Amino acid sequence: LPDVPSPALLVDLDAFEANVTAAAKMLEGTSIRLRPHIKTHRCPSLARRQLIRGTIGVTCATLAEAELMVDAGIGDVLIANEIVAHSHLDVVARLASRARVAVAVDSLAPLQELSRCCTELSAQVDVLVDVDVGLGRCGVRDPEAAAVLARKVVASPGVHLRGLMGYEGRLRRSNPQRTARVELARTRLSQTKAHLEGVGLTVPVVSGGGTSTLRDALSNHTLTEIQAGTYAFMEADLCGLGLPFTPAVSVLATTISGSGNRCVVDAGWKALGCHYGDPVPIGVAAKVVKIGEEHTVLRLHCSRDASPGVGDRLLLRPSHVGMTFALHNRVWLIRAGRVETCVPAGVYAHGGSW
Amino acid sequence: LPDVPSPALLVDLDAFEANVTAAAKMLEGTSIRLRPHIKTHRCPSLARRQLIRGTIGVTCATLAEAELMVDAGIGDVLIANEIVAHSHLDVVARLASRARVAVAVDSLAPLQELSRCCTELSAQVDVLVDVDVGLGRCGVRDPEAAAVLARKVVASPGVHLRGLMGYEGRLRRSNPQRTARVELARTRLSQTKAHLEGVGLTVPVVSGGGTSTLRDALSNHTLTEIQAGTYAFMEADLCGLGLPFTPAVSVLATTISGSGNRCVVDAGWKALGCHYGDPVPIGVAAKVVKIGEEHTVLRLHCSRDASPGVGDRLLLRPSHVGMTFALHNRVWLIRAGRVETCVPAGVYAHGGSW
Repeated sequence: LPDVPSPALLVDLDAFEANVTAAAKMLEGTSIRLRPHIKTHRCPSLARRQLIRGTIGVTCATLAEAELMVDAGIGDVLIANEIVAHSHLDVVARLASRARVAVAVDSLAPLQELSRCCTELSAQVDVLVDVDVGLGRCGVRDPEAAAVLARKVVASPGVHLRGLMGYEGRLRRSNPQRTARVELARTRLSQTKAHLEGVGLTVPVVSGGGTSTLRDALSNHTLTEIQAGTYAFMEADLCGLGLPFTPAVSVLATTISGSGNRCVVDAGWKALGCHYGDPVPIGVAAKVVKIGEEHTVLRLHCSRDASPGVGDRLLLRPSHVGMTFALHNRVWLIRAGRVETCVPAGVYAHGGSW
Repeated sequence: LPDVPSPALLVDLDAFEANVTAAAKMLEGTSIRLRPHIKTHRCPSLARRQLIRGTIGVTCATLAEAELMVDAGIGDVLIANEIVAHSHLDVVARLASRARVAVAVDSLAPLQELSRCCTELSAQVDVLVDVDVGLGRCGVRDPEAAAVLARKVVASPGVHLRGLMGYEGRLRRSNPQRTARVELARTRLSQTKAHLEGVGLTVPVVSGGGTSTLRDALSNHTLTEIQAGTYAFMEADLCGLGLPFTPAVSVLATTISGSGNRCVVDAGWKALGCHYGDPVPIGVAAKVVKIGEEHTVLRLHCSRDASPGVGDRLLLRPSHVGMTFALHNRVWLIRAGRVETCVPAGVYAHGGSW
């Protein structure tokens, strides 16, 4: 990769594609569909590569991401988040004339506003009633509140009740607390679904989960679709959950300084998502000593011959893939150690057209 | 700000300009010059506004930032970092045909390569020998090592010895350890300067420091120019150092969910640099309970009437300005509560032309 300037975000396409295939294989023979969460990369080119058999469209966290996906020709987009501002809901309705669009709702006023926007544009947006399944973030708190909203969806023009949504959060450690939280999440969703069906509402879709709960979803048939995103890239703290995924993301850095058993590379907080821990050097016996905005200082545990010298390249595995993508405006897609292509990513964070 | 989509990065221009003026005032009557560090914002429009009387050009942390500044017509650029790859050094030399360019050096091979690149292009790049003043990152370790490099600069075509550089790191707490570190940094620089002058080398420039050591630089005349960046925006953990700066950066968020004494806004890790602590809500009695990639959950301590409802806007003060800019591709410049203009920022991180 001599021509790639550093720091650079790399995706190993062989690993990425193997992960995408492995996820599909996990769900094979079940009625559960995968709806890849593209907040992890915000990259149309990668999103398209995730949409293989068994997937059903993409999940987005923001309106800007949804617009990016529709602009890229992706025909089925779920915004798994509450959109409430009038100007934002207007964009949602406009997107619905170009793709199948669904959005999460947990309160009345935004639903009414969405209905108005859709009616004005003769658009239809699907709605998932968001249920708080224990995370304490968005979502209604009890089945009756869900039913009130769901009835309102059914009674409102321009919007259509697709079902329920609930996300249990990042449950990555294999411990009893984790099991209890998964159980709670599934119970809340299934009870809410039963309550809605009890009052005559149809709930074809229950969407939720993530990479860390992908296995749990297989043994419990509450979810009809899974919003996993990290599966395609893997992260260190997902190890130990028995998932068939391998790391696919690294950051290419250059050694810019150092001597003895110490080296400094040109990638720091502004190139590496560190919210889940320090990055890990790949293929060299070294440990991170210190990180700053633009630098990582490594202590080397290898022989002088194997130590990277000034100018040598190094790969670092970031702990948090999604935050890493959010810091880069392009990603280098690598196959067998060579650049296959370089595509835009990340920067679309807050760059919508509205 | 009803037309600004959220989350959005805002700069209060009145506060920003007052900070820029206050920094200039601090240095008035001294021979010390300010070289604003633009890694904080990576925004040409803001950089130009910082270049008032008493400033001497900009400081950059990366080559991409330097290129961005030169493209924006800024004529004096210091890359306060080691640039070592041939392809990167070639860009440095090319930039030098369009602006006055300096770069930090702490080892021989990159210096020789830079000299070759400059000679090929008939360019001249100035060099600051980087001294490790206690941070343990880049920089030579002793005065004699600095002298060896400095002599080499003087002997090499295409490069010119401008002086020394040394950065002591983030010293934001007012405590004895801080005083000792500032003292160590200044001593190492002045000893190195004396050593170089003792062997007949001219050291017109000693560049270093930051916002947190701006006051110290005034009482100790080692530095001839200061690489402060955060001063223009202020950060919470710079309070207590007696600096005349006020906060100028906030992130506009929308309340998308919540009830009772809890609300959830649409800005999280991907909109707020949190490396120095949680963001602080402005003008509303609330505390951050939890942050995720796209959300912040707040506990409200105000009356029901004063509580933000779904759809209401909220301003959050991020703890880390530089990381916040790195997550946004545009910044809204605000004056007296109204948008004056919206300009590109942040995304230039790794988007150089080479």
